[in-house]
Amino acid sequence: MYIPTLSDMFHAHQRIRPHIHRTPVLTSTFIDTLVGARLFFKCENLQKAGAFKARGASNAVFGLSDEQAAKGVATHSSGNHGTCLSYAAGRRGIPCTVVMPWTAPQAKKDAVRGYGGRVVECEPSTSSREAVFAEVVAETGAEFVHPYNDPRVIAGQATCSKEMIEQVDDLDAIIAPIGGGGMVSGTCLTLSNLLPKAKIYAAEPEQADDAYRSFKAGRIIADDAPNTVADGLKVPLKDLTWHFVKSNVSDILTASDPEIIDAMKLIWKRMKIVMEPSSAVPLATILKNKHLFAGKRVGVIVTGGNVDLDTLPWQ
Amino acid sequence: MYIPTLSDMFHAHQRIRPHIHRTPVLTSTFIDTLVGARLFFKCENLQKAGAFKARGASNAVFGLSDEQAAKGVATHSSGNHGTCLSYAAGRRGIPCTVVMPWTAPQAKKDAVRGYGGRVVECEPSTSSREAVFAEVVAETGAEFVHPYNDPRVIAGQATCSKEMIEQVDDLDAIIAPIGGGGMVSGTCLTLSNLLPKAKIYAAEPEQADDAYRSFKAGRIIADDAPNTVADGLKVPLKDLTWHFVKSNVSDILTASDPEIIDAMKLIWKRMKIVMEPSSAVPLATILKNKHLFAGKRVGVIVTGGNVDLDTLPWQ
Repeated sequence: MYIPTLSDMFHAHQRIRPHIHRTPVLTSTFIDTLVGARLFFKCENLQKAGAFKARGASNAVFGLSDEQAAKGVATHSSGNHGTCLSYAAGRRGIPCTVVMPWTAPQAKKDAVRGYGGRVVECEPSTSSREAVFAEVVAETGAEFVHPYNDPRVIAGQATCSKEMIEQVDDLDAIIAPIGGGGMVSGTCLTLSNLLPKAKIYAAEPEQADDAYRSFKAGRIIADDAPNTVADGLKVPLKDLTWHFVKSNVSDILTASDPEIIDAMKLIWKRMKIVMEPSSAVPLATILKNKHLFAGKRVGVIVTGGNVDLDTLPWQ
Repeated sequence: MYIPTLSDMFHAHQRIRPHIHRTPVLTSTFIDTLVGARLFFKCENLQKAGAFKARGASNAVFGLSDEQAAKGVATHSSGNHGTCLSYAAGRRGIPCTVVMPWTAPQAKKDAVRGYGGRVVECEPSTSSREAVFAEVVAETGAEFVHPYNDPRVIAGQATCSKEMIEQVDDLDAIIAPIGGGGMVSGTCLTLSNLLPKAKIYAAEPEQADDAYRSFKAGRIIADDAPNTVADGLKVPLKDLTWHFVKSNVSDILTASDPEIIDAMKLIWKRMKIVMEPSSAVPLATILKNKHLFAGKRVGVIVTGGNVDLDTLPWQ
């Protein structure tokens, strides 16, 4: 297992800079007053392809040799990673294949295709996904880019908190949602080196709290088919992300689905940004744990904005 | 009639800077490709109190003598100006009274009160509004700050395009929605002096196209009770805003309500920002008039983000 280093993060930032936005940091006096802390929202919902995953995907794609790149990249993801890998491959002009269940929402398939990627459908089961994915790789020779358990991906995600500490002075803490742990691992990589005094919190839905339970148990626990409105956060930790989580995270906080939806609506209403339910989990947990953040300067990573506007969760 | 000058705009920017956000400029490769131009969205939906009107209101409030300020400010507006005047007065710690019909949405009354302002209700008629407003002024001695036909307000709104031309080089044109014409007048004030080569377009709903018809007729024409989803744009031009519109605007473009709603949804979906229907009128008109903008660098002013999330117009 290769553990990405600070140097990998710096190289990643050099490599991906032409392909990503340096996203803005937004604040809300209203929410600050409500919380009793100063919150700085790093808006990766405004990132290319609508999610922070454009960072890791771009780092993986643009780090390939020309020879490997010619064979393309592949992944299995019906979420933002698939879209973002397609985006990055499109920028380099190389093939990208995304395996997803035929039951995935049409919008997700369209998003991959919109950036030029190919969607290959499988049955909605792990065994079918693995079999179909193996066929794709055998046929194309494509490079597998895992959604999070990949040092190139983590080094890419780590550039987000590098930008944030350049944009905001004296952060006491950063909080990010946790699913597989790619963003949290990248945050750990950067902060443990560049701002070691800052605490790192991970925020997770109660209804998919495998990372929370893993953290408390001291070993990876994977949930069986969790279900939450924060659908980007259903995946389990893997060895590489577990390494960072167990080494650098101060605590994992959880919130219920209704709390997540309330926080999401609050941010839309007061901050005027469109974000996914997953991205609202940090604020939902802050509102439940005000004592942890009282008077502090807290970076909040808004991970993505890809949401179906026709079926908003409060309606 | 005092016509605000470039110097007034510079003084306004000095005066209001501590009270407003320098809002970010966002772009979308997807929308650029669709339009065939480069669009730069100046995001006043991310402004304090959710609208560009925080600029003009702050300039009026912070330009008052201490003696006048002590008596407070007043306006009649059930839209963003009322909220923003309350915001600015709250920052200075002075009284603010907003007269609005008792039929106005509860959310609008709450917004004024949320910043510390007082709401005085009138009947939903012009005569009642004028009578109640006169009483308020007689009783308090408050300074009337008109929503747009006021040189202090226009000088404040003019700071938006000043920031924009500092943030984006070589704009060929700027387009903004037009209702009473405060933002368009401010844009004219700044650009006619600082970037005279740039064209200025105003965008208006077909269903409230009084500015369009005024522009074509060469005199102010006021609509009788127009009705459009872009409810911030129903008010007519007045002498001061008409001065700027007739002198500096290249053209006024219109779009239908369904076109406005489509453009609004497109921006929410691709740019991940929450904006009002009024703010989508510029993109709706650009999509109908691509030939005017082909290959150009165009500034688009996103005027506000105060929208009822429970009743979105596409649902």
